[in-house]
Amino acid sequence: MPELRTDWLTGRSVFLAENRALRPNEFAAPTVGEPASAGGGLAATCPFCAGNEARTPPAVYETCDAAGRWLVRVVPNAYPAVNNLSGVEGFENWAHNLPAAEAASPAAELQLAMGVMGAHEVIVESPGHVDRMAGLSVAQLRNVVSAYSERLRHWRNGRRLRYGLVFKNQGPRAGASLAHVHSQLIALPFIPPAVEAEIGRAAQRRQQTGRCAYCELIEQERSAGERVVFDTDDFFAFCPFAIWQPHEVWLMPTNHEPSFELSSAERLDRLAPALHHLFVRLDAVAPNLHFNMLLRTAPFGGDYDAACHWRIELLPRANSLAGLEVATGLHINPLPPERAAQQLRSA
Amino acid sequence: MPELRTDWLTGRSVFLAENRALRPNEFAAPTVGEPASAGGGLAATCPFCAGNEARTPPAVYETCDAAGRWLVRVVPNAYPAVNNLSGVEGFENWAHNLPAAEAASPAAELQLAMGVMGAHEVIVESPGHVDRMAGLSVAQLRNVVSAYSERLRHWRNGRRLRYGLVFKNQGPRAGASLAHVHSQLIALPFIPPAVEAEIGRAAQRRQQTGRCAYCELIEQERSAGERVVFDTDDFFAFCPFAIWQPHEVWLMPTNHEPSFELSSAERLDRLAPALHHLFVRLDAVAPNLHFNMLLRTAPFGGDYDAACHWRIELLPRANSLAGLEVATGLHINPLPPERAAQQLRSA
Repeated sequence: MPELRTDWLTGRSVFLAENRALRPNEFAAPTVGEPASAGGGLAATCPFCAGNEARTPPAVYETCDAAGRWLVRVVPNAYPAVNNLSGVEGFENWAHNLPAAEAASPAAELQLAMGVMGAHEVIVESPGHVDRMAGLSVAQLRNVVSAYSERLRHWRNGRRLRYGLVFKNQGPRAGASLAHVHSQLIALPFIPPAVEAEIGRAAQRRQQTGRCAYCELIEQERSAGERVVFDTDDFFAFCPFAIWQPHEVWLMPTNHEPSFELSSAERLDRLAPALHHLFVRLDAVAPNLHFNMLLRTAPFGGDYDAACHWRIELLPRANSLAGLEVATGLHINPLPPERAAQQLRSA
Repeated sequence: MPELRTDWLTGRSVFLAENRALRPNEFAAPTVGEPASAGGGLAATCPFCAGNEARTPPAVYETCDAAGRWLVRVVPNAYPAVNNLSGVEGFENWAHNLPAAEAASPAAELQLAMGVMGAHEVIVESPGHVDRMAGLSVAQLRNVVSAYSERLRHWRNGRRLRYGLVFKNQGPRAGASLAHVHSQLIALPFIPPAVEAEIGRAAQRRQQTGRCAYCELIEQERSAGERVVFDTDDFFAFCPFAIWQPHEVWLMPTNHEPSFELSSAERLDRLAPALHHLFVRLDAVAPNLHFNMLLRTAPFGGDYDAACHWRIELLPRANSLAGLEVATGLHINPLPPERAAQQLRSA
């Protein structure tokens, strides 16, 4: 059973999940577009290809075409980081069975371990074997975006979990073990400390200025101009000032909207072409890019809605995170956001 | 000129260093032991091989054999993350020329940028083309350890810098761009916030218990026993409770010693065989492992000596840091430290 361990002194936390050692891994070498088994009957072995549904747990959500064939499919992660409530009937009652936080004796105060009940799902983003987001049509991205929203709303409505994140690992350098386009959703009964720290700063700023700090940031970025990738009625996309990796891009709704999953269907419909635009341009300036997509939405329940503002981060993984980054949290990046934005605008 | 940018809301910091885009990169594919150019006259092109000294800046430190040939060579990093004081005559006076912290108008409070004067050096750990630490003899590791100590002391004594870190990236998955064994030293005029946070917790614990929290941790680990790799009069090596990666190992001095660079020559002499032991065992349980080595020593100046306790972390990079890790700081690891320690003890 997976457990979450925390080392109080260093502040490090880890989900110990031994079952994950059994995960399939397609990648011998970390290249997008050249999976190790390419050409060798991929559709027969890829667990995410249509026809291979038996290789994953049963779906908990599907979007289908008129003929009843699935277009987007959500399944419980078969190798979860948490004790997985996804696909469990009556999960709303799980609190009764929650293992108590367990102190690792005798080091109770320095070393903490607990079982974590939560949700860990895989969102399969295409029935065919597509290996990059730039290969999906706008129509298909609409289905994808709407699956993110539906599943976040599902866990939010369960009322037992406090925080949800959708994340994508495209390419092994970004942490992917399978090439077929997919994202993951994790929902937890607590807000991760690193996320809480950012929310705390946003709340502090809001108290000082009377307005959302992210709305303020958008306004400042708009007036500076040089880091803007695009600016529409719905969405503002820009390269962040403290850019970690070449061509990193953030997208936010232009008006104050804390929760992605509570955004209107009309707006989420318009998110699909905006994302398509970004995926295609990223692919143009940096072909075969490995990247993470992080969809950050406010904690469930509304307590932090005044301070929070959802966003999507596209974080390329061109440069490995090295010893300096891991030890100090200080990153090194050779490409300034002003140049990256200019390249993305003109791609 | 490199600058340090901080995004106050997210707490993210990055050294923007455009010159680093010009770094040579040997690795087409991320494998230790198989550099892209293997077989193709490596000694002719590797800037760290003896004979190619002209391909790096002049040495600032060397250990030589009786015939005057260098065994370990320290040079200023030619692609530094900071405005490099390494190799600069009279660096002790740099404060007079320090560019003031520059607010990025008009977002002064949310976005901070400043020039950072500091030191960024490369420690070349072998004159011949060795591509892994397990390939170095104990005698050579003595020279390496003593170079770390000498250079940290050098920057400490300059009295202008507050924090020093030695780190190693072995293999491209750990961030290396060259295969030839080397480490880096970075020294900064401030303590990185993530480091400061840990020191703060250690200081808080010390205040509560009256003793060093790391000494306490060693005692607890020793009595638990199951995560211990070895335990000698000088050094205690163990797999950390909240282990981030399979086979991660930490080594600490068994008695309270805040600063690595102030350790006695006798003890540092005995560190070489201890490190050799770990490198060889890591190589046995996980051949061709990519890893970071992080040497964490107390901030310069002594202010934090009661709370700090130096350590060396060997952090394998078997699993890529994926979206979850990057977004939340919560890691996933399939191999418990108790099993990892057992494997390392019996390797």
